[in-house]
Amino acid sequence: MISFSDIQHAVSVVAPVVHRTPLLTSRTFDNRSGNSVFLKAENLQRIGAFKIRGAYNKIAALSPEERARGVVAHSSGNHAQGVALASRLLGVNATIVMPRTSPENKVEATRAYGAAVVFSEDSSDDRERVAEEIRQREGRVPVPPFDDDMIIAGQGTVAVEIAEELKELDVLVVPVGGGGLIAGNAMAIKHLIPGVRVIGVETAGADDAARSFRAKQIVKIDPPKTIADGIRTQSLGRRPFEIIMKYVDDIVTVTDDQVIETMRFLMERMKTVVEPTGAVAPAAVYHNVLGQRGKKMCAIISGGNVNMKKLAKWLA
Amino acid sequence: MISFSDIQHAVSVVAPVVHRTPLLTSRTFDNRSGNSVFLKAENLQRIGAFKIRGAYNKIAALSPEERARGVVAHSSGNHAQGVALASRLLGVNATIVMPRTSPENKVEATRAYGAAVVFSEDSSDDRERVAEEIRQREGRVPVPPFDDDMIIAGQGTVAVEIAEELKELDVLVVPVGGGGLIAGNAMAIKHLIPGVRVIGVETAGADDAARSFRAKQIVKIDPPKTIADGIRTQSLGRRPFEIIMKYVDDIVTVTDDQVIETMRFLMERMKTVVEPTGAVAPAAVYHNVLGQRGKKMCAIISGGNVNMKKLAKWLA
Repeated sequence: MISFSDIQHAVSVVAPVVHRTPLLTSRTFDNRSGNSVFLKAENLQRIGAFKIRGAYNKIAALSPEERARGVVAHSSGNHAQGVALASRLLGVNATIVMPRTSPENKVEATRAYGAAVVFSEDSSDDRERVAEEIRQREGRVPVPPFDDDMIIAGQGTVAVEIAEELKELDVLVVPVGGGGLIAGNAMAIKHLIPGVRVIGVETAGADDAARSFRAKQIVKIDPPKTIADGIRTQSLGRRPFEIIMKYVDDIVTVTDDQVIETMRFLMERMKTVVEPTGAVAPAAVYHNVLGQRGKKMCAIISGGNVNMKKLAKWLA
Repeated sequence: MISFSDIQHAVSVVAPVVHRTPLLTSRTFDNRSGNSVFLKAENLQRIGAFKIRGAYNKIAALSPEERARGVVAHSSGNHAQGVALASRLLGVNATIVMPRTSPENKVEATRAYGAAVVFSEDSSDDRERVAEEIRQREGRVPVPPFDDDMIIAGQGTVAVEIAEELKELDVLVVPVGGGGLIAGNAMAIKHLIPGVRVIGVETAGADDAARSFRAKQIVKIDPPKTIADGIRTQSLGRRPFEIIMKYVDDIVTVTDDQVIETMRFLMERMKTVVEPTGAVAPAAVYHNVLGQRGKKMCAIISGGNVNMKKLAKWLA
């Protein structure tokens, strides 16, 4: 398991490259939630999502020999762009395996950063299989989406920024896919603000982490059906799971409809564009799924890379 | 005609109340435009548009006797919300005349700030007529949308923030409806950054200011058909026109399609929600209607109050 010093080191690596994203606030959101709410806007991060943090931290740590071999990654979207941009910034060749059903805008953006894209079937199993084949055939270094110490430490830099800005906090709310984001940030925020509660959020259709948390072992589910394409993972990674069991206080779920209503509020009132997965943690606060009042809460908006045609459908 | 000291005074009045909005940037926008571009995000202003600045400056300057009489205003949307919120903040009773075709969200927001809404026909003539009737009948003080010294001075506070942050600037690009925004900001920016060029932008269907600028006299057009509902004014105000002829260098037009494409880019890549009128000035820079390269440009995003159902239609 990583320690907080790994996250501190990641801050020194990624801070020169990533945006220090703002904390958004809205009186209407506060009133609706009954809490004092800050939204960490990683939709305004480079590549439009937090994933650049972990990917850059990982690839920056490779040896010159490893960098020369190039990297391979598999992702439903934002990790792909994170690895693609981090690779370009560090002069490393990248191949990305993406499911055929990935949003078009994410595939285009990945290619635009100079990475080669190879398609797989939809399941995380098949993504992993195709990436493993490429690794063996081409000798590339894998950059896993979440089950990796350097990735987890990189994602944890979000909470360091939150703690520096807010100083005090009652609850940190984080979306859960493979668990990299919540693992790094749970560890970081508990180190920096003792007493804070960390709550994970999934959509009801992708509740493998909530089940795993209760069962105290990793539960694997069928390929989830949910609007939140960034958390369509079938199970938590082993490394994130260990950290989650130690540092996370609860994992709750929201419905796809609650996610859409929150996306609409964020656009209409706060003028910020968020992808479905990015609205998952805010939705738990907006709809007060946590059942708390008068708390100082921060929810992480994980990303904002939404396909405009799909968005039009959800808004109509 | 106002002088720059009126705008300086307006800064001292409105600064404690309004947000100091950020200047947004995007490498992709820069590359597309061929210029170094800053977007002044008044869509993130209170009420979602710059109009709170002028309205607050105006109502704050009323005598106690005038405040007791209450105010009346007419507006297609954002000025309504500006007057409504400014009135509430200053404890003044407000009645707002809005055309029946105003976006539903703007009518709702105006009422939510505590103002009474009275509907008129669509033309600016009829809006004015209804507001004048209410003024005479109820003794309320009119808060004009643009043809007023205090309003113009209040809107001019945008450019003071821009100049403080950017220090140097080649071109300031501003949307033109009744002319209050561009008049105040042309005067302010030319005082603070000598040598800057100020360019007004309208949509092709609402080009009364461009025509007036060339004719060197106020030209009145039929009620304009354009997606940009905030600039559906039929003619410039007399006071703004005088200032425009002295301080503005040119007025250009963009098409409704260029506006929609720019709105889509701002959402998809910059994650910021802008109403059609708010995208008018950025559209001129994005589509390089100005035909310049290598310049430091700032375009004002005037507002972000867009109806989600209409937005869905434009994105589809």
